[in-house]
Amino acid sequence: MPDASKMTSSEHQHEKNFMSIHKYDLIVLGSGPAGERGAAQAAYFGKKVAIVERDYYLGGAAASDTIPSKTLRETALALSGIRSRRLYGVDLSLRRQATVRDFLHHEEVMKDIERRRVAENMLRHNVDVFRGIGSFKDQHTVKVTSRGKKPEFLEGNIILIATGSSPYWPDNYPRDRHIYDSDTILLMKYLPENMIIIGGGVVGCEYSCTFAELGIEVFLLHSRDMLLPFVDRDISLALENSMSKMGINLKMPVTVKQCIAGVKGVAIELDSGEVIKSDAVMLAIGRTSNTKELNLETAGITLGKHGFLVVDDNYQVVHHETHEPVPGIYAAGDVIGPPALASTSMEQARFAVIKAFNLEPYKGHVAPILPYGVYTIPECSGAGKTEEQCVSEGINYVVGKANYNQNARGMITGDHDGFLKLLFEINDDPGSPMKLLGVHVIGENATELIHTGLAALMMSASHDLFINTCFNYPTLSELYKYATYDAMGRRAKRLNSAKPVPNN
Amino acid sequence: MPDASKMTSSEHQHEKNFMSIHKYDLIVLGSGPAGERGAAQAAYFGKKVAIVERDYYLGGAAASDTIPSKTLRETALALSGIRSRRLYGVDLSLRRQATVRDFLHHEEVMKDIERRRVAENMLRHNVDVFRGIGSFKDQHTVKVTSRGKKPEFLEGNIILIATGSSPYWPDNYPRDRHIYDSDTILLMKYLPENMIIIGGGVVGCEYSCTFAELGIEVFLLHSRDMLLPFVDRDISLALENSMSKMGINLKMPVTVKQCIAGVKGVAIELDSGEVIKSDAVMLAIGRTSNTKELNLETAGITLGKHGFLVVDDNYQVVHHETHEPVPGIYAAGDVIGPPALASTSMEQARFAVIKAFNLEPYKGHVAPILPYGVYTIPECSGAGKTEEQCVSEGINYVVGKANYNQNARGMITGDHDGFLKLLFEINDDPGSPMKLLGVHVIGENATELIHTGLAALMMSASHDLFINTCFNYPTLSELYKYATYDAMGRRAKRLNSAKPVPNN
Repeated sequence: MPDASKMTSSEHQHEKNFMSIHKYDLIVLGSGPAGERGAAQAAYFGKKVAIVERDYYLGGAAASDTIPSKTLRETALALSGIRSRRLYGVDLSLRRQATVRDFLHHEEVMKDIERRRVAENMLRHNVDVFRGIGSFKDQHTVKVTSRGKKPEFLEGNIILIATGSSPYWPDNYPRDRHIYDSDTILLMKYLPENMIIIGGGVVGCEYSCTFAELGIEVFLLHSRDMLLPFVDRDISLALENSMSKMGINLKMPVTVKQCIAGVKGVAIELDSGEVIKSDAVMLAIGRTSNTKELNLETAGITLGKHGFLVVDDNYQVVHHETHEPVPGIYAAGDVIGPPALASTSMEQARFAVIKAFNLEPYKGHVAPILPYGVYTIPECSGAGKTEEQCVSEGINYVVGKANYNQNARGMITGDHDGFLKLLFEINDDPGSPMKLLGVHVIGENATELIHTGLAALMMSASHDLFINTCFNYPTLSELYKYATYDAMGRRAKRLNSAKPVPNN
Repeated sequence: MPDASKMTSSEHQHEKNFMSIHKYDLIVLGSGPAGERGAAQAAYFGKKVAIVERDYYLGGAAASDTIPSKTLRETALALSGIRSRRLYGVDLSLRRQATVRDFLHHEEVMKDIERRRVAENMLRHNVDVFRGIGSFKDQHTVKVTSRGKKPEFLEGNIILIATGSSPYWPDNYPRDRHIYDSDTILLMKYLPENMIIIGGGVVGCEYSCTFAELGIEVFLLHSRDMLLPFVDRDISLALENSMSKMGINLKMPVTVKQCIAGVKGVAIELDSGEVIKSDAVMLAIGRTSNTKELNLETAGITLGKHGFLVVDDNYQVVHHETHEPVPGIYAAGDVIGPPALASTSMEQARFAVIKAFNLEPYKGHVAPILPYGVYTIPECSGAGKTEEQCVSEGINYVVGKANYNQNARGMITGDHDGFLKLLFEINDDPGSPMKLLGVHVIGENATELIHTGLAALMMSASHDLFINTCFNYPTLSELYKYATYDAMGRRAKRLNSAKPVPNN
């Protein structure tokens, strides 16, 4: 563990003594998913922890963005009655009677609940909360400044940077009241009749679906030829299909030439010359690290590509070129760049704390498989290898698919398009176990369903697991068994056609 | 494999030749979940299969009872808006405007879809379907009789009995138009204002919740002191609590003395002297095997306790006393008694077929862990050992719990009472892996959520699995991680208080 006293000058020491410094085992900068979990983890193991949050509320992006956007999605689904539309013989759609306040009411409630939950979690773990802007005074001292208050100084053996990110706003988009990003979109006072969303990543796709479900005409402009470029292509194509079906105008690949804000709305001109006009625009083209106010140079920290902090396998901050670790300083979450999901951010922060304090017996490694969950309509989720990865890595694999519309639970919930796709490694022996490589789901409940496959991947399971497991009936989880049957059938066909096996 | 020719007399042979007998590798009696899956499994491996169904439709109880009752439950939930009641700032409740037809419309649609699905599955697998009553002519010949048609005769190397069960109707309940069982309840023409349900098992609890959700005043009479006696007691108590909260009048333990049907409804007198009157009564006090028309004696088959067929570990039918196997005859599903769930019935039938045809390389053993899923409101599900089993087996265990109301997804969906309960085996070493023993969930989506824990149980996983897994956020599946933390905390406390460990 680094020795802080060696790193401060005597003058510095003097100033500190004068200022009554608070001493901690761990100082966490930021109280989003990464910060909260990192702080709680260390406190759980008896460390003295401080957390610094510049916002009035705790919770960061998860409370102000992730949770509310998921809540708005649930509201949209309930109001439009998608789960019951063709289903119950009763029309549940109340959309026309609903007001903007109705849509956003529950979202406000949820935001408050999540913020309170984080505050209570910090209290329960005896984590000291400092409100204000945290910046490095030296490699082990953080200065917390808050308007109208004297600055406070915290000294920590370990400092975890979890200050998150902010939406990226390119120069060719004017700051205008009709143009929103993911931080401001939920502050929108009215629901526009139509809307242009820029960017076909997670945020752009999620909001496109929610707003389309609320009855808004949505144009989604994407610079690449595939939505959610990191997911299995079958899932991406199925999502594209579903989004088109629900009326979203997908334009991809396109490049935006300019964006002109007028009194009544916005006009976007594409490179092709096409002009699209709409009441509002939402930017969803990436995020940049929140590092400006950290005074990183003082701590000897440099930034890497796209302004992200660079870390090693232990999430310790390193010099962006020499990869020399910065003593005692770790970083996790959005501030270190992709995948920038709440789930992975928490995992990174927990692991950083374990490494920083030598808690390895408790958890020897970071989760080797990071799933993704996208709250589009329908949901998408995946874990392990995509089919494209199998191809590019030259793996001998077979696909197994099962559709929601052939499953009793899928039929009850009325999801006709969803499917589960499994990828197994095969060899020439038709009777050998096939190792599970990847799990991909699109459809209702996909973000939950994935975890059965994820647990199987974590345990290096083979196809036998799903064959030998008895699944509840009627459940969507049964799809695991049927997708496995499908894979077995495809393997048998493949091996038979390659070299005929007698009496197989 | 038994040799059919040795077992028939020459006279018999003559009659057969005369009658043009259809020959099969496998004859399946009944097309419910067990029959369908047994037939499909054998056909998948190239066997020639016939299935005999006495009903006009294929699908058995799953199509006529399981699926429709789950569908009615979904309808009830959607209509009453439970998922959104305190949630969206918009009242979705349309109950008062809905008619009986609305409630039962989707249920009819679903029944048709499921029946068609089974028929298509049989067609796809080239399974011959015979409609009529199947009965044994001898140990390898089945006679199929159908009104107005000449009987047909099928000869099979293997016969799988999957004729299911019927609701048990005790003598002290008159046959009356106000008294229903689970076969007739969905034929009900009107929704009564109030209703007495007899029996606190799966069927009684499920219908109590659905009808209460539809706004009917429900009295649930149960002869024991615990609902769903086979589940973990914490789950049973939580369900009892939820059902009371939703207004169901639970009376347990009580014994019904008599039931008197009148012109306008039914009066039930309890042993205590209390009399409860209601518009309708539903019996849910067990089921009896459908074996009457099978002519079992001819095949040398005897019945066991409660009239169930007795089978060995391979699901081959055995003599109820000598346990001598009956050559070539297997049985699966309700006809062999508890647990009589669609999921376990399918598993039994698949395994019986594997054993009967020596397909072991494909699947060496029946699923060692059978989960249960109960579609009450909220859902309950479990797999592995209950806490009561751990106690009675003298296992050193620790509990880990996590509540829906501390989980982001749980808050979004508005389920405040749900929880996940894990049971782990422990020893005196505070750093050793704790083996997962049991998984129990009550709350929204419980019947799906259980499968992550079930996969872990199947793989003999320890608590590390959930600690090392990165879960999607926000999902209910995250509860696995938090329940595991809880268990770790309880173990640490337990071991600390037993014998203080320095520096732990």
